[in-house]
Amino acid sequence: MNPQVLAVARAARAASRQLAAIEPLRRDQALQAMAAAIEGAHQPILEANALDIAAAVSAGRSAALVDRLRLDANRLRSLAASVREIAELPDPLGAAEWQPARADGLQIGRIRAPLGVIAMIYEARPNVTIDAAALCLKSGNAAILRGGSEAVHSNRALIAVVGQALAAVGLPAAAVSALPSTDRSELLDLLKLDSDVDLVIPRGGEGLIRFVAEHSRIPVIRHYKGVCHLYVAASAEHDTAVRLLIDGKTSRPGVCNALETLLVDAAVAADFLPLAAAAMRARGVELRACAQSIGWLPGALPATPEDWDAEYLDLVLAVRIVDGLDAALAHIAAHGSLHTEVIATREEAQATRFMREVDASAVMWNASSRFNDGGALGLGAEIGISTTKIHAYGPMGLESLTTRKWLVRGQGNLRHPIPG
Amino acid sequence: MNPQVLAVARAARAASRQLAAIEPLRRDQALQAMAAAIEGAHQPILEANALDIAAAVSAGRSAALVDRLRLDANRLRSLAASVREIAELPDPLGAAEWQPARADGLQIGRIRAPLGVIAMIYEARPNVTIDAAALCLKSGNAAILRGGSEAVHSNRALIAVVGQALAAVGLPAAAVSALPSTDRSELLDLLKLDSDVDLVIPRGGEGLIRFVAEHSRIPVIRHYKGVCHLYVAASAEHDTAVRLLIDGKTSRPGVCNALETLLVDAAVAADFLPLAAAAMRARGVELRACAQSIGWLPGALPATPEDWDAEYLDLVLAVRIVDGLDAALAHIAAHGSLHTEVIATREEAQATRFMREVDASAVMWNASSRFNDGGALGLGAEIGISTTKIHAYGPMGLESLTTRKWLVRGQGNLRHPIPG
Repeated sequence: MNPQVLAVARAARAASRQLAAIEPLRRDQALQAMAAAIEGAHQPILEANALDIAAAVSAGRSAALVDRLRLDANRLRSLAASVREIAELPDPLGAAEWQPARADGLQIGRIRAPLGVIAMIYEARPNVTIDAAALCLKSGNAAILRGGSEAVHSNRALIAVVGQALAAVGLPAAAVSALPSTDRSELLDLLKLDSDVDLVIPRGGEGLIRFVAEHSRIPVIRHYKGVCHLYVAASAEHDTAVRLLIDGKTSRPGVCNALETLLVDAAVAADFLPLAAAAMRARGVELRACAQSIGWLPGALPATPEDWDAEYLDLVLAVRIVDGLDAALAHIAAHGSLHTEVIATREEAQATRFMREVDASAVMWNASSRFNDGGALGLGAEIGISTTKIHAYGPMGLESLTTRKWLVRGQGNLRHPIPG
Repeated sequence: MNPQVLAVARAARAASRQLAAIEPLRRDQALQAMAAAIEGAHQPILEANALDIAAAVSAGRSAALVDRLRLDANRLRSLAASVREIAELPDPLGAAEWQPARADGLQIGRIRAPLGVIAMIYEARPNVTIDAAALCLKSGNAAILRGGSEAVHSNRALIAVVGQALAAVGLPAAAVSALPSTDRSELLDLLKLDSDVDLVIPRGGEGLIRFVAEHSRIPVIRHYKGVCHLYVAASAEHDTAVRLLIDGKTSRPGVCNALETLLVDAAVAADFLPLAAAAMRARGVELRACAQSIGWLPGALPATPEDWDAEYLDLVLAVRIVDGLDAALAHIAAHGSLHTEVIATREEAQATRFMREVDASAVMWNASSRFNDGGALGLGAEIGISTTKIHAYGPMGLESLTTRKWLVRGQGNLRHPIPG
């Protein structure tokens, strides 16, 4: 165990107790100070970011990675604005909720409390540093941030800015801290500290998430990939289904709530597939089709078994004909990723079965897969989309960074009367 | 990977999909059939249990273990009755809850769904086999049960009885299954199967729970020990505080919500400690006292640092004088186990601070620690008391075996309008 890692975790634990005890107003003041500090520190942040960009470019990293890494004045302004928006959200802890008193005078209540210490493990995007710090602070949690090595200078500069804001409002620097370095051995040590850290949230590629899940003794909320399906039922309105396909596949193909596979009921394949093919062709989408559908899809490639499990994150769509709702459900059970599933149908009974039986964090009926998102579902802010079914399933808002404890208020009430 | 373990998990996954799809009435029928099957199979169950008892006795196991292992006609009758009570509880899945439609016609709702497959890892008590099977079935989950090697014959007989009940109502045997053996290697294989198993609940000693938490890739809800404190504040009513101490320490010392440490405010130590000492002496409780308190506690032993972290589960109490509420909070932060904490005070402001700042699944004000229990808090049934803060904190009722998924119902609603 690296003693510096242990010291970071212990200091975060101590800071978490202070954060849980203060008034919500002071947490909001810290967030306002954080936004102001970001606005006042464009120069040092952008200088640090330039070092990361230069290192990534000279290491020949992809243009996509360099773009994820890059900060500029606009991105910093929007980061500060998002921190202010978080400050203005309602307090996720709120007041105790009491049940009516029982006959014996006992009152039972529950109150939301911060989880305590949350470790965020992420990759190249330095804006996660600020988002995670702000969401954890708003909910009364201390944060331990472990970004990717590509963003090490940017993250160090951003955490220094957060530290200034915390100091300005008299909160401990350990409320938001980083591991001493991005060495994997430090991460492994952190993941052992289950009495000092309450939750680990890994955000990034599947490899990172599996690594964290495999090595952590601390509870982990995972967000694996999104292999999202649109099932076009026999009674679907074809125009609606085509529009759901276009929005789901092409409005932002690189995100996890984008569609990856189209399942078409055999009864309407001959009518629907040509419409789908035309809409996809017009938008440059490559098709990977099953043997039964390929004849209706000019230019499509034959799908291989790997296509049914692929998260393309690109303008590629797998297409399969299925024989009714049960076959669609079986395909999704075998290949779905617990993320988002869509049915296009005019039959309520079918939609009800689909919504009940599909195992996914969000199930859409005649609505786009792209609505599975904290903002679209009204959560106000989002720290990720969980495909772990415990604690939070789907978009994680501020409430998912809290727990509920029981309160019991009595007048000396006992479980067992004392004889004599 | 043992192929038999994988087969058990895959079959449980398939069964879980059937359980999630059926009407609640059929799950209740399965529970009624289970209760009847237990009542009709006293003889084979007790014969199997006798083999386990004989093995434990001849291996020189403790009388306490042999007692936990033992089934008799009364215990079987009460097991069957508890299964019937679970059948009669309300359906924990319930109906979808819809928000009012948005301006764009989109309706957003949430519905409770089973977690899927739950693995219960436990030790000697064979009644856990039936309790866990019944709670998982009621909530629409498939269960994989892995009891202790001491109870292997009893558990096999009980699972056979459950299997008869499932067959009688046409549900798959894999809805409730066991690992092929109690080999630790099979448990380790099971704990790797994070796509087939949704949650692991270990119940038993701290060693078992730590072993599971360390090796599992599947989310784990833990229940470590209960080191519960009673803090007697300066303004406490002494008679109330003594009664809370008696109930908390002596009504059932072997359970996790029993008191282990008494913290007494320095301002009232001279008055309160003699009362506490007399009440404890009269009930045969051994005291382990800090240097400041020992003078008021005739016969007490000096406490060592280990006493502050001890879960005695016995008629032993640690006693410490603390200098005000902050010192009490600091002691509990350092030595508490996130289980149950109690304050005796007449001052509401003090109680409010204690309830907010103490990190514990239940915080009691002038009420006994023994109320932290699923039955006492109105949950109807309990599968354990979680000291993990995510998903469930405190007593876990049926609801904690479910998740909530999002439902979105539209009329072809899209995130981004399609141009043209």
